[in-house]
Amino acid sequence: MVDILHKVGIKASTPEAVYKALTTMGGLAGWWTTQTSGNGDVGGVIEFRFGPGGIDMKVLELIPEKRVVWEVVAGPTEWMGTTVSFDIAQENDWTLVRFKHQGWKEPVDFMHHCSTKWGVFLLSLKSLSEATKGAPAPNETKLDSWE
Amino acid sequence: MVDILHKVGIKASTPEAVYKALTTMGGLAGWWTTQTSGNGDVGGVIEFRFGPGGIDMKVLELIPEKRVVWEVVAGPTEWMGTTVSFDIAQENDWTLVRFKHQGWKEPVDFMHHCSTKWGVFLLSLKSLSEATKGAPAPNETKLDSWE
Repeated sequence: MVDILHKVGIKASTPEAVYKALTTMGGLAGWWTTQTSGNGDVGGVIEFRFGPGGIDMKVLELIPEKRVVWEVVAGPTEWMGTTVSFDIAQENDWTLVRFKHQGWKEPVDFMHHCSTKWGVFLLSLKSLSEATKGAPAPNETKLDSWE
Repeated sequence: MVDILHKVGIKASTPEAVYKALTTMGGLAGWWTTQTSGNGDVGGVIEFRFGPGGIDMKVLELIPEKRVVWEVVAGPTEWMGTTVSFDIAQENDWTLVRFKHQGWKEPVDFMHHCSTKWGVFLLSLKSLSEATKGAPAPNETKLDSWE
């Protein structure tokens, strides 16, 4: 099992604001993909679309201002059954987000791509919160010919 | 053992140009840190400085236009003995860089930070090559209060 790990700090934000960006359809559409819909409650499924394809995430856990956990229930084969978590903490002026995409079976080429791409989107979340403007798909940084 | 993995594609570049950005002092200073000096030959040591601290990398392997491997010989405790590799390949219009920072003993908090930060610098490498301007330290995206 291999994991994708990231950490970003958002300056002059709050755990409340970041939690909102991770749990509301409008918040998620502001940094990950503009095509976001579904039910963000625990047990609900959120549908993220990227052009023709997409990912469905079941919401496993929500702790207000602290933690969000999703399970991939539809999407690329390599993502099936993996989990995505965001842990939020405040340290001085920074609201920190510790991110994990866990449960990859093998460190396949697509995992390298997704690692960098999660970095791009977490920088979009940072930018959304710091500058009130993110760069969600379809206008995010393209990494290679897979996109 | 846990690894940091990334992959970026650089459009309309060449393996020659990307290899140069990864192996010459001027190239490295254009995307990682402006304070880069040392000996980039196999067996040589390159000194990367970031404000007060820094990292010394011993060059372990160089395959022109294909592969660059470094070993950390001085730097943060968690980095000591780890290796950093870049594999270069051409696919259609894209020059791909597959990146690995391997040999971390534990998935510590600093590893989360470094994972995202490598993403930031690899996007700087992409930007250097695509737009002829990178964003090396000290002008890179700051991630949190550690910087």
